[in-house]
Amino acid sequence: MTIAAVADARSPLGERLKAVRALSLALAGPLSDADATVQSMPDASPTKWHLAHTTWFFETFVLRDHVPGYRLHDPRWPFLFNSYYEAEGRRHARDRRGMLTRPSLDEVRAYRAHVDAALVAALPTLADAALELVELGCHHEEQHQELLVTDILHGFSENPLEPALWPAARKVPVAMPGPIAWVEGRTGIVQIGHAGDGFAFDCEGPRHDALLTPHALADRTVTNGEWQAFIADGGYREARWWLADGWAWVKAEAIVAPLYWEEQDGVWTRFGLDGRRAIDPAAPVTHVSFFEADAYAAWAGARLPTEFEWEAAAAGLDPAGGNQMADAGPVEPRPGGGLFGDVWEWTGSAYRPYPGFKPVEGAVGEYNGKFMSGQFVLRGGSCATPRGHARASYRNFFYPHQRWQFTGVRLARDL
Amino acid sequence: MTIAAVADARSPLGERLKAVRALSLALAGPLSDADATVQSMPDASPTKWHLAHTTWFFETFVLRDHVPGYRLHDPRWPFLFNSYYEAEGRRHARDRRGMLTRPSLDEVRAYRAHVDAALVAALPTLADAALELVELGCHHEEQHQELLVTDILHGFSENPLEPALWPAARKVPVAMPGPIAWVEGRTGIVQIGHAGDGFAFDCEGPRHDALLTPHALADRTVTNGEWQAFIADGGYREARWWLADGWAWVKAEAIVAPLYWEEQDGVWTRFGLDGRRAIDPAAPVTHVSFFEADAYAAWAGARLPTEFEWEAAAAGLDPAGGNQMADAGPVEPRPGGGLFGDVWEWTGSAYRPYPGFKPVEGAVGEYNGKFMSGQFVLRGGSCATPRGHARASYRNFFYPHQRWQFTGVRLARDL
Amino acid sequence: MTIAAVADARSPLGERLKAVRALSLALAGPLSDADATVQSMPDASPTKWHLAHTTWFFETFVLRDHVPGYRLHDPRWPFLFNSYYEAEGRRHARDRRGMLTRPSLDEVRAYRAHVDAALVAALPTLADAALELVELGCHHEEQHQELLVTDILHGFSENPLEPALWPAARKVPVAMPGPIAWVEGRTGIVQIGHAGDGFAFDCEGPRHDALLTPHALADRTVTNGEWQAFIADGGYREARWWLADGWAWVKAEAIVAPLYWEEQDGVWTRFGLDGRRAIDPAAPVTHVSFFEADAYAAWAGARLPTEFEWEAAAAGLDPAGGNQMADAGPVEPRPGGGLFGDVWEWTGSAYRPYPGFKPVEGAVGEYNGKFMSGQFVLRGGSCATPRGHARASYRNFFYPHQRWQFTGVRLARDL
Amino acid sequence: MTIAAVADARSPLGERLKAVRALSLALAGPLSDADATVQSMPDASPTKWHLAHTTWFFETFVLRDHVPGYRLHDPRWPFLFNSYYEAEGRRHARDRRGMLTRPSLDEVRAYRAHVDAALVAALPTLADAALELVELGCHHEEQHQELLVTDILHGFSENPLEPALWPAARKVPVAMPGPIAWVEGRTGIVQIGHAGDGFAFDCEGPRHDALLTPHALADRTVTNGEWQAFIADGGYREARWWLADGWAWVKAEAIVAPLYWEEQDGVWTRFGLDGRRAIDPAAPVTHVSFFEADAYAAWAGARLPTEFEWEAAAAGLDPAGGNQMADAGPVEPRPGGGLFGDVWEWTGSAYRPYPGFKPVEGAVGEYNGKFMSGQFVLRGGSCATPRGHARASYRNFFYPHQRWQFTGVRLARDL
Repeated sequence: MTIAAVADARSPLGERLKAVRALSLALAGPLSDADATVQSMPDASPTKWHLAHTTWFFETFVLRDHVPGYRLHDPRWPFLFNSYYEAEGRRHARDRRGMLTRPSLDEVRAYRAHVDAALVAALPTLADAALELVELGCHHEEQHQELLVTDILHGFSENPLEPALWPAARKVPVAMPGPIAWVEGRTGIVQIGHAGDGFAFDCEGPRHDALLTPHALADRTVTNGEWQAFIADGGYREARWWLADGWAWVKAEAIVAPLYWEEQDGVWTRFGLDGRRAIDPAAPVTHVSFFEADAYAAWAGARLPTEFEWEAAAAGLDPAGGNQMADAGPVEPRPGGGLFGDVWEWTGSAYRPYPGFKPVEGAVGEYNGKFMSGQFVLRGGSCATPRGHARASYRNFFYPHQRWQFTGVRLARDL
Repeated sequence: MTIAAVADARSPLGERLKAVRALSLALAGPLSDADATVQSMPDASPTKWHLAHTTWFFETFVLRDHVPGYRLHDPRWPFLFNSYYEAEGRRHARDRRGMLTRPSLDEVRAYRAHVDAALVAALPTLADAALELVELGCHHEEQHQELLVTDILHGFSENPLEPALWPAARKVPVAMPGPIAWVEGRTGIVQIGHAGDGFAFDCEGPRHDALLTPHALADRTVTNGEWQAFIADGGYREARWWLADGWAWVKAEAIVAPLYWEEQDGVWTRFGLDGRRAIDPAAPVTHVSFFEADAYAAWAGARLPTEFEWEAAAAGLDPAGGNQMADAGPVEPRPGGGLFGDVWEWTGSAYRPYPGFKPVEGAVGEYNGKFMSGQFVLRGGSCATPRGHARASYRNFFYPHQRWQFTGVRLARDL
Repeated sequence: MTIAAVADARSPLGERLKAVRALSLALAGPLSDADATVQSMPDASPTKWHLAHTTWFFETFVLRDHVPGYRLHDPRWPFLFNSYYEAEGRRHARDRRGMLTRPSLDEVRAYRAHVDAALVAALPTLADAALELVELGCHHEEQHQELLVTDILHGFSENPLEPALWPAARKVPVAMPGPIAWVEGRTGIVQIGHAGDGFAFDCEGPRHDALLTPHALADRTVTNGEWQAFIADGGYREARWWLADGWAWVKAEAIVAPLYWEEQDGVWTRFGLDGRRAIDPAAPVTHVSFFEADAYAAWAGARLPTEFEWEAAAAGLDPAGGNQMADAGPVEPRPGGGLFGDVWEWTGSAYRPYPGFKPVEGAVGEYNGKFMSGQFVLRGGSCATPRGHARASYRNFFYPHQRWQFTGVRLARDL
Repeated sequence: MTIAAVADARSPLGERLKAVRALSLALAGPLSDADATVQSMPDASPTKWHLAHTTWFFETFVLRDHVPGYRLHDPRWPFLFNSYYEAEGRRHARDRRGMLTRPSLDEVRAYRAHVDAALVAALPTLADAALELVELGCHHEEQHQELLVTDILHGFSENPLEPALWPAARKVPVAMPGPIAWVEGRTGIVQIGHAGDGFAFDCEGPRHDALLTPHALADRTVTNGEWQAFIADGGYREARWWLADGWAWVKAEAIVAPLYWEEQDGVWTRFGLDGRRAIDPAAPVTHVSFFEADAYAAWAGARLPTEFEWEAAAAGLDPAGGNQMADAGPVEPRPGGGLFGDVWEWTGSAYRPYPGFKPVEGAVGEYNGKFMSGQFVLRGGSCATPRGHARASYRNFFYPHQRWQFTGVRLARDL
């Protein structure tokens, strides 16, 4: 893990910690205890669990390990709120997280307050190694903030009443985007991976050379309107556009459209955090799987970019720009975005280690390396990514059938 | 359905309705919104769902069908709270009931209040057919009260913290029961099935002759202490005691003891509504499946009673006696009970129609008849059966592997 | 087990043994080694396995246990060919029987010859207990002959080429049967269960009194033509005719007609041992499950008979009459049959022990008793039942969804 | 697809065709009709199916499409023997291939003879495009020859008798290999992918530049003896060596050793085509999954090579050398091999398209591209690869849990 040097920036870290912790609470604000408790599928976790797990991370790796005399808020809770750290011992089964009606949402809030207070008190005296873990914990919590939002969306979608978490954002009329323009990318050897002394996850390094062949990237992502054309052309009914595993998935799951889409009286609608509404043809398509992204690209006579092509294009751009999540409120892809924000962009790159990658020692080292099989890399961040969390070198990853994140498609082609 | 004539007993029905409705609310009293929302397995339903479904039953079959001008509390809710009445149209998938974080527990309470008020207002003017449905609704709700209690127990058992719903009841020291005494039963033709003008479910009739062969019933149910001996003797490890389907179940599910039992430091404990405690060797064993009951009987050189033998023995006894649920509070089988209360007693009788049985016409007619395959009859009621709900002719039924109800064993043998 | 006294009829037993053993070989006559090896579903077994298992039964319970100095044909084979006798030790997994390409069909034939020779040689000196086991073995093998035929049919049905085992039998033109006539049955106490000194399986006794209520049985079974009317009337699409478990099965398995039926160009066809042909509207419907039989009866305003009603009607009739299997050749239900032969008739009786039933001691005692949960009784025998194997007291049993046997429906109603 | 120019080498192609077709028959030589018919798992196919499918490939893409007037051997068979070519229409379900007891092995041999004769007759007149398809068909059949051998091994392993296909090869005593020596690989830009005018599959191109970082490869593959040390050190019991998906697989499948290994009286044995024997500690470990290979490498402080590192090392070596399959007879990894033969070597590279890859148009174009998700690349060929089929650029691929091929491990490390 290439954790950035925290240098003497100690008070900023304290501010950042408070801001991150506050956003999580704010996201859970509109939720009832029940909303925050249920689990709609094994891939998703309850809000309460996200709130507690991110707290457990700080409690375990910072307070327990680096603050002498710290006493666990409740010694039975690590079993409940450890996610997957095998080195931290046995833990509650992932697919039974929705059974935890106790502790309540209020008790979890109290847990957060307890740990926050201890962290703030300890901060001035923590050694650098511990401060790095505090920073890691902030980034870790930001990851969970995005999951929290997408998991709530999934949970609400399972309720036939289709409740809205937030009112719809005011729509600004936008002209339909024109045809894709192709932007030629860099060719030859480029530097890939995190550089500099800012924070990055272990899997973003080591920085290394990569070789790019002549190619171009689309200047924008695929829109809902374009996706409708794919559907209308029988895209989901023709095997030839699909990877074999993707076609098996389409048939087994009876997939006919992106997740949350439903045709009502001839109109395609989508369910979102503001309820069910007609799709916006100008906005980026989202909630599509890698299989769908790849099939769409084949249908369109193009391909998905590699993660290196994407990173080379993004180098130098402001990763905090675009439509990302700044506070708790309406979240949705908007027309006309750039490389960062709106939707995570599926790449054609399998999630594998960079040359020279080594996991960190100890429990924290289970962070990313052990997921490096069967998943594909996504780049760029989405409308649900906390602003400030994105980076050009950031590697998100999901299985090729998963689509409950805000995932979309940018096309590429060979030159 | 042999619904009893309600005669001129109209005000008592109103009192009964209020009492039944109040008990359901009281049972849910200690629960949080989250406790009341989750679903721990497809067989179980959330408390909130029980509270709403029983209300839907009254709203649909009484208010909607018999009260001119009644408007549904919420026209979207019948889809959510219909259980299995095919004639009432499409409904929410049974195994997704735990996704309904909305409506909230409070909103469901408001639904109950709304319907209760409409029922009470309508009661003086309802025709007999409608009053019979009110009475049916009360019995229906009592059935769900028992499920509500056992479903909560199952849900809490899935929480590693093993919360207690109620404090433990005060234990009165009891002498260990002596060996079973055998009570000779009636032989020859007996009358079986509901008689008289009280309420009964359709499957309890028609009353008919049945033929009993010489037999005896044990004077008490099998105890936890006796069950320990069965375990210690390798009862769960020897195929010869088991039905083939039972043995397959034992191996597939790795069954080694009754549900909720756990050996801790050499002591058998059980989880109950008062948390985890050591088993009471004098109390009736409970949470055993038909397969276990049958295997135990084989091991003990006996057999299970038929439902007719049981009913003949129970005829004339007070069905409201014994340890049954009178209000919201600690519920557990106690040592020394009789035929009624404590534990439902598995019989060796498959749940099939009596001679001349005909389901009632219409949606209410789906009540019992359609479950008459693959299940076994239980008799007598349990500590979670609302007092007043039990009858000698009452036929409860579950699949042979199910055991989350308070189910136990009374032995029988041929003479 | 109420095994009949074999008395001094020793040479007839030898003749019978030879005839039974010869029929099994004849049934396998048209099969290739491959035909005899594959297993089309866990419920079915390969022909080769049937041939070997029935031989193992004689080798184990007669030769090994009663003939001093007998050496097993191959000491590794009991593991392969034990079916479900737990007391006989570990055995090959039932659903992997199709993996046994070795021993070959010829090697299994040699096994049969070896065991037959040893049996014939031993017969004159065997004690009565052993002779009873020889007789049991003959009946056991006859049971497997019927399974062998129905398992081959199922296997061939899985081959898209739909091969025919035998040429079609010559059809004799038959007038369409008229409407059902209702035959009043006996009322009051009747004697049920095997009587006399002939052979019977353990589950057919003890003989005991049973009480019949006023009823009538149809004078014939339901025909293919009548079943078409049920289909045309939407029988498979309306929940109200079905038991809940049956309806779930219809939806999960997409059931729309009896097994092996297929609509081709508007004509209903069925696959049989003579290939695929148009159904004969006058012939008894077959390959229907209990769920289908029960739904049909509900649709027809009738019910299924109880097993006691059926047995009372059959008492005194010739059980060897009707269309049963006399040698290896075309087998199919024919129009116009009586109570015995053509199709097994589903009864509404769950398969449970008679009063006073006790399994025999030892491995042979696993014969029938351990299957007494979840299954329904069928009576009468079918076109694939070896002639001489049927009895009025005979209790066949299958799970309510199973339908690869020649199973059909006779209606009953209350008077 | 970069199919090689066949140029004027027409008579050699005819010779090659005959040799390939003859080897398939020879491999099936020791099999009975039953051996050749059964299917032991969905991943495996029956021998008879391999023999017929490879024939269908020639019949369809060469004879039907390029030989005027050719009539199909049997018009019903394409449905049976198409594997996965969606463009060729509906086909028999992959996991039901074991149901095809008809056509028999002899009938399939006649099919082969029929098609072979037609091919040989047509060869002199075929256009280049068709000749390329003949060559493709030969390579396609060689792929199936390897599967045929490994599928038979898997099928025989499911038989508790554990039959041997061939007698054991004579073992030549070999000194235990010493410790691994590390061979430094090339660094910088290398050319990867098929070059020249020989045959290659589409996925081996386009040839392109790739960038290698400093690394070394082990001079030999991991041995059975070394694998025993991994087992003895608890390798299968410690999560820390495993990818998360791999660890889930180990637990779900109770994996404790390579496939076909069994500990008997303290000695590790393996099942092979010569039956069950003690493992040879000097021979390369085989039948390990990618998950196991990756875990072993982690435990050994190394990693798997990338497919580019491997190809760079293999460039210039004789791909026909080493222990590969030359005729029908004993097949097993041997001590002391090089990069080619003995065992396929798992690489750390996900199977994805090379820059500029495009599938060929038409049904043949479904050849490789559609499998490019979720699988990992293996290199080098095995003892069951037909000699002449291997190439430095050859990319084999399997899912990370699959291990019924002769798969092994070569370690790599960063320098």
